[in-house]
This record gives sequence, structure tokens and C-alpha cells, in this order.
Amino acid sequence: QPLSHIDGTGEARMVDVTAKQASERVAVAEARVCMAAGTLEAILAGNTPKGDVLATARIAGIMAAKRTGDLIPLCHPLPIGAVHIEITPQSEPPGFCLQATVKTRASTGVEMEALTAAAVAALTLYDMAKALQKDMTIEGVRLMRKSGGRSGDYVREPEP
Amino acid sequence: QPLSHIDGTGEARMVDVTAKQASERVAVAEARVCMAAGTLEAILAGNTPKGDVLATARIAGIMAAKRTGDLIPLCHPLPIGAVHIEITPQSEPPGFCLQATVKTRASTGVEMEALTAAAVAALTLYDMAKALQKDMTIEGVRLMRKSGGRSGDYVREPEP
Amino acid sequence: QPLSHIDGTGEARMVDVTAKQASERVAVAEARVCMAAGTLEAILAGNTPKGDVLATARIAGIMAAKRTGDLIPLCHPLPIGAVHIEITPQSEPPGFCLQATVKTRASTGVEMEALTAAAVAALTLYDMAKALQKDMTIEGVRLMRKSGGRSGDYVREPEP
Amino acid sequence: QPLSHIDGTGEARMVDVTAKQASERVAVAEARVCMAAGTLEAILAGNTPKGDVLATARIAGIMAAKRTGDLIPLCHPLPIGAVHIEITPQSEPPGFCLQATVKTRASTGVEMEALTAAAVAALTLYDMAKALQKDMTIEGVRLMRKSGGRSGDYVREPEP
Amino acid sequence: QPLSHIDGTGEARMVDVTAKQASERVAVAEARVCMAAGTLEAILAGNTPKGDVLATARIAGIMAAKRTGDLIPLCHPLPIGAVHIEITPQSEPPGFCLQATVKTRASTGVEMEALTAAAVAALTLYDMAKALQKDMTIEGVRLMRKSGGRSGDYVREPEP
Amino acid sequence: QPLSHIDGTGEARMVDVTAKQASERVAVAEARVCMAAGTLEAILAGNTPKGDVLATARIAGIMAAKRTGDLIPLCHPLPIGAVHIEITPQSEPPGFCLQATVKTRASTGVEMEALTAAAVAALTLYDMAKALQKDMTIEGVRLMRKSGGRSGDYVREPEP
Repeated sequence: QPLSHIDGTGEARMVDVTAKQASERVAVAEARVCMAAGTLEAILAGNTPKGDVLATARIAGIMAAKRTGDLIPLCHPLPIGAVHIEITPQSEPPGFCLQATVKTRASTGVEMEALTAAAVAALTLYDMAKALQKDMTIEGVRLMRKSGGRSGDYVREPEP
Repeated sequence: QPLSHIDGTGEARMVDVTAKQASERVAVAEARVCMAAGTLEAILAGNTPKGDVLATARIAGIMAAKRTGDLIPLCHPLPIGAVHIEITPQSEPPGFCLQATVKTRASTGVEMEALTAAAVAALTLYDMAKALQKDMTIEGVRLMRKSGGRSGDYVREPEP
Repeated sequence: QPLSHIDGTGEARMVDVTAKQASERVAVAEARVCMAAGTLEAILAGNTPKGDVLATARIAGIMAAKRTGDLIPLCHPLPIGAVHIEITPQSEPPGFCLQATVKTRASTGVEMEALTAAAVAALTLYDMAKALQKDMTIEGVRLMRKSGGRSGDYVREPEP
Repeated sequence: QPLSHIDGTGEARMVDVTAKQASERVAVAEARVCMAAGTLEAILAGNTPKGDVLATARIAGIMAAKRTGDLIPLCHPLPIGAVHIEITPQSEPPGFCLQATVKTRASTGVEMEALTAAAVAALTLYDMAKALQKDMTIEGVRLMRKSGGRSGDYVREPEP
Repeated sequence: QPLSHIDGTGEARMVDVTAKQASERVAVAEARVCMAAGTLEAILAGNTPKGDVLATARIAGIMAAKRTGDLIPLCHPLPIGAVHIEITPQSEPPGFCLQATVKTRASTGVEMEALTAAAVAALTLYDMAKALQKDMTIEGVRLMRKSGGRSGDYVREPEP
Repeated sequence: QPLSHIDGTGEARMVDVTAKQASERVAVAEARVCMAAGTLEAILAGNTPKGDVLATARIAGIMAAKRTGDLIPLCHPLPIGAVHIEITPQSEPPGFCLQATVKTRASTGVEMEALTAAAVAALTLYDMAKALQKDMTIEGVRLMRKSGGRSGDYVREPEP
């Protein structure tokens, strides 16, 4: 089974999608920022009324979704129709779960847009907290589900 | 201990670095792309002579390092002096480790540049393999070490 | 009446336009750069044959229209179909009126593209004249009319 | 007194700043978004705890400051050292005042960065409120003060 | 016969394509990098298994195709559907031929995208070899053929 | 003699320039757009007073110089200090010569910036004339001279 982005001689190419029909497509991806409990508390304390911590991460993720085709070399530029980033604090292990939902009406899917949005939102949250803790990690950047397109719907198996 | 990127009223700001002295700074970050053994084999098979798979991820990571200040809202634009991306296949668990090293002579560090380079290189590798496997994950996006600057050197504790 | 770009919990989102029908849409926006009479004269004198002053502002405005979705966080990227920037000197008060017309065939309108084009063209004109006068101002950045789309046509009321 | 960005034959150029000494420079610019009292109320109501309205405009302004050299054709790319955007609601006339402060250590000033940040933050606020009111205007985009550099400090005269 | 990008008064504009029907369009462009025989040998030697020289040029060309509307002021942003860059070493005269093929389904053609991809891939190859030879040249940046659209197909006449 | 942008295992990297001293550097590059005599005449006729043809190409070249590090994967981002584009009509063979001069104070040179500026200015001129003639070519994209830096000054040998 070949890699679609590599042609018969091993060279990178942008896959041809001009013959595919445009249809509505949705993808949902997640990422987690894992941190010490004290770091989590400090972020939540900073996110008081008017506090911009989570808003900054949301905006960064939304803007990154729109720039995916400019960041990932073999991605197609797509007319992004909607982006939503949901950020949820988690106590065990301490940190945040960032979920990105991206929609489009296009001839190819938006998995990479959702993954890029989740990853950049997570990097932005990391950036704002890195003065407090240097060994945070970003884990579990992954596709949760997608729908639309020829290859059918996909829902990630729940982890055991 | 306050969040440096948030001012006293909770509003986001770019921290003032104009009074800090420029000095040489290095940061090393890593990310892992975890996949099925068969996906790993297919990528390595596609990466024959002239095969562009890993080269594409390296180039994407290098270009992303230079664009960090444009992606992460509160990062300073920095005169990136060197970027190196090393991608190593791993058998247990199967996948790739991507390590990004970034250097600069500037008044603030390049942790975010190294983390962004590693994350975007990982997303690019994911993109090229996603036709083979939908449930790959990106794990362990984290800072390995940094040197230079007022806050001193940092080396990540080895995982137990 | 809620803000469309903010969801029920107060979080920013890109409004979903994937279900809307693409149709032809036009928006016209204006901005004025107000300056001393002597500054206006110097610009007009510099805009002799081969003089690039107004051309530079026009090109900047056209390019900014295409980059609106990358500048304004919650704007959709749109397939801009036409941009025209008209710059007219005015003697009372002295300065320039910049009018931007943007067209597209898309599922949402181009008001922000026209406003961004007019504002960036005005900033560019300001940049070229700022060595002559430091207290110029940009005034009246506003939508003049728009057509197409579900919400119907709009024509700005003439000022009394 | 000639236009510095236009050479002797009328052609646009980027002024040579390579021989100028780098020094600390600050610029402060403002813009106002003028709206109906009801629109102002709706925005303030939407800006409850967790409300992202003003945060989105702040982030857009900060990111635009960093991109000024890419938007305004004859501006130099500068190592932006700090950006702060302050947004204040005003009741008479109803609307918001957006003030951008930009700092750098460079061989030319950051007036255009401050003006661009204020203008893009204002456009972003406009974008989020435009579903409520179509005839808002952006007024008074102007430099308030600057310091540093050969041409000396500047403070705008208070309006009578 | 007038210049389409200049209106009746000599001012630049983006031509209106909103009334044109979207159809499949293809363009093929070429560029050559001419160098000493020794430089060619060194590049080919560096392009051993895992060697990234030509891959880097290919990726740069693909990414530039997607960014054409952001580089060439009066070009329309287009939904690029496929890009392929083929790089062939040539012995007489020594150097490389770079051929870019771009496809879209849009209301205007992709000649500029193909030419920009070929030119940027050539500049990237030049960049990687410039430490070896300072007097390389890029020649023959030109459209080879295009199809689709109202103006009909075009095939470049073979050179005599 | 190795390729500097490729490490010992054949992998692309950004060369480390952090230990190099910043100094003033200048590079001059040229490109030619070759066309039929009638196309040249039409462009010159369109470039009447207020005619934006050559100004558009100049602005595109200046903006591209600033974006070189974002286009050419292994180029360093540099604080461009000055850009000047000179466009000269030529009758034999008919067309235009575009000369780009770029200056900086940095730890590496600006050859690629000058070459990119000349190439993009040439592509922009091509874009504006392509409705008149499909078989124009861009020739002779090459470095004319450079000064500054460790490797000494370079002046291109005049062609015989």
C-alpha cells in the first residue's frame, strides 16, 4: 500500500484532488498539555474575568487552522468554513485538553487542519505557562473523528 | 507566581525584552509520532534513495521554526541562526522520534521555536502517512534542554 | 441579540458558513487620510509621472484584501475575485479618500476585506508621508455599501 | 522637503537604515471604534467572564504589530520587543478606544507597528460586532507619542 | 490591446473573475539552473540516499505555488488542487531543468502558480549550491503549456 | 567540497551563523523579461503618468526581498535594511532588465534576497503582460555583485 504523497519514484507531490466532488467535511482532533498541579492552578487563577489565557490559545488555534496549507507542505489550501476550539481543565493528570473542530465544503478533508489547530493551541498554552514550569509536555495529538468524503466516517476507538 | 504573558488585570501582552542583552541561546525539543509497525515499514520503504518522506518533514520543521513568532501570539520574532531536525525511526513502540535544535543570538530564548519545529515536522510526517493509518498519535512534544540567557541552563530529567 | 462570533459560554469561534449557498457578493469601504495642506501638496508633487506614491498604497490595499482571513482572527478565508482601490485627493479638509471595492463568489460577505484593504492602503499612504508630518490621522474607516447574501443589500446613509 | 520613500525619479524604495545605530524606541498609537450605545452594551455583555471579545481584538493587534513589515510595503522588518494593547469602553460617543504600545531596539522607529496594531485590533472588534450594526466607523487612527531615534521625541498635541 | 491588470486611467487592479465559470485548469512551466560541471557533480554527489538537495527544492516549489496569490500582487488566490515538481539533471549545458505542473478547478488559470513554483524551486537549488559557485544563472523561466479556460489550450512552440 | 546546507549524512539543515559577526552587506542581482517588441510597446504605453505597471513590479520585488527567509527553506531571516528595484526597458532584445539591490547589517549575506526580489519583480511584470503574449521568458536571473562578509567581495565577470 503506497504513500499517497510520494510518487512512484519516491518524490513528494501534492495529491491531485481536482476531480473529487466538493462535499461537507468535519474533523475533530485533540491534544493535551500535561503540567504540575501548581501550574494548572496558576493558569486557572490567571484566567479570572478579563483573563486572556485560554482565549489566546483559542485564537492561536483558530488562526493556525486557516494557515495549515501554508505550514504542512503537501496539504491543500481549503476554504475553512468553521473552527471551534474547546479547552477543558483536567485534574488527573493535571493539565488541559484542547479539542479542535474544523468544517469545510471542499474536495478533501480537514484532519490536518484540526490537528494543526489543536497542536498550535497547545503550544500557545505551553508558551504562556513556560515561565512557571519547564518540563510540561504535549501529549495525545490525535484525530478523534471525521465525517464526509469518499473514505467514509471515522470515529476513534475509545482507549481501554 | 504570576504568568509572565498576562498583566495585572489579566490581559495578554508580549513581555518586554528590549532591555535584555542579546546572547547565544540554544534549545532542543522532541516529538514522537506513534504508529502501527506496518505503517512504519511502509514509510521506511517509501524513503528509498530519492525518497522524500523524511526530507519533507525536516523542511517543514525548519520553515516552521522561522515562523514561530507568526504562529504563537505572544512569541517574539527572533533572528533564527540555525535549525537542525533529526528524525530517527524507533521500533518499540513503532514510530519516529523527531528532534529539533534551534540556535539564535537574541535577547530571549528559542524554546518555542524548537517545540514548534518538532511539532510541525511531526504533523507533516503524520500527513504523509495518514492514508495508511487513521489512529496514529503525536506524543511527547517537550523541551529536552536549553542553554543561554538569564534563567540558566536546563536539562530535562531522564524519564524513569 | 447575541454576538455571532461568541458562543453561549462567551468563547470566540469562527461562525459556521458551510451550509450557506455561494453567491456573488460585493462590498465597498472607505478611509480618509487627513493631513496638512502642505503635506498633500508634497505627495501630489511626488506623484509625477513614474511617481509611485499612490500606486504603492493601491498595491498594499489589494494585497491586504487577500490576506484578511490571515489578519482578522474570526474571518473566513475567501476566494477574492476582484479588488479595486481608488484614491482621490481632497482639498477640504486636505488629504486623500481611499475607496476599496472587493468582489467574491462565496458563502459569506467581503465587508472585512474591503475595510482591511482601505485601512492598509491608508496606513501605507501615511507611512510614505510620515517624514513630512507626524500628526496626520486616519478617519472614517467605514462600509459604504454591500450587496449579495441573505441579509440583503446595504447602502450607508449619507452623512447630514 | 522630499518624500523619503520615493527616490529622485519618483520610484518607491525602502529607505536605507543600515548605517543608523540601533537604540530603544517606543511608539504609542490609538484608534476608536464608534458605535450605537446598544452595540456597546451588547459587546460589554458578551465580555463576561470567559468572554473573548476584547481578548480577540488584543491578540489580533499584537500579531499585526509583528507582521507590519509584511503588510506595509516600504516598512523595515523589525525585532519587535514588546506589544501591549489596551482597550477601553467609552460612553460619549459610545464605543471603544484601542491604544497600542510597541517597543523595539532597532535602527528605525515603530510608529507604523503601533498604528497597524491599533488599526487591526479595531477592525477585529468591528468584525465581531458587525452583525449587530452595519454603520460603525473607525476614527482617529493616529500616533500619540514616540521616543528614541535621531528625530527626537514626539508627543501629540492635545485636541482642543 | 490593453493590459488587463491596468484600468483606463493606468491604475493597477485585480481583474474581476467572479462571473467566470470554474473549470479544471492545468499549467506547466519550466526553469533551468545553469552551473559549472563540477557544481553539478557536487550536487548529484550530495543527493545520495537520504540526500535532501532535490527534495528541498521540490518542497520549496510546491509551497511557493500555494503562496502565489500572496506574492504576485494582482494574482487571484486559487484553490490549488495538485502540484508536481520534476527536477532533471542535464549535462549540456550542465545544470538542472525544473518543471512544475499545477492543477486547479477555478475561474482563472494557474500559469503564474506554475511559473512561481518553478522559479522558487530554482532559487532554492541555487541557494544550496551557491557556496560552490557564485556565477550560476537561472534561465528560461517560461510557460510550456496550459489547458482549460476560455482562452483555449496553449502549447509552447519548440525552440529551433 | 561539500554543500554547506547538507550535513554529513545528506540531510538538509540551516547553516549555523550565530558565531559570525554582523557586518554591512550588499548584494545586487538582475533578471530580464524577454518579450515581443509589440508587448514592450504596450507596457510602456500603459505606463503613462499614473500608470502602475512598473510600480507594481517594484513593490512586489521589495516585498519579496523581505519574505525570502519564508520562501527559501534554508535561508536565514535577516533584518533587511534597504531594497531598491530598478526597471529599465531594453530594445534589443525587447524587454525589461530588473535590478534589485538589497542591504543589511547581519551575520550572513543577502544574495538570495536580491535574487528573490529580482525574480518576483520579473514574475509580476510577466503577470501583467501575459494577456498580451504567452511565450515571454524570464532569463538571466543572476548575482551581479556582493560585498561584505568573510568570503570577500564579488563582481560578476562581464559577459563576452
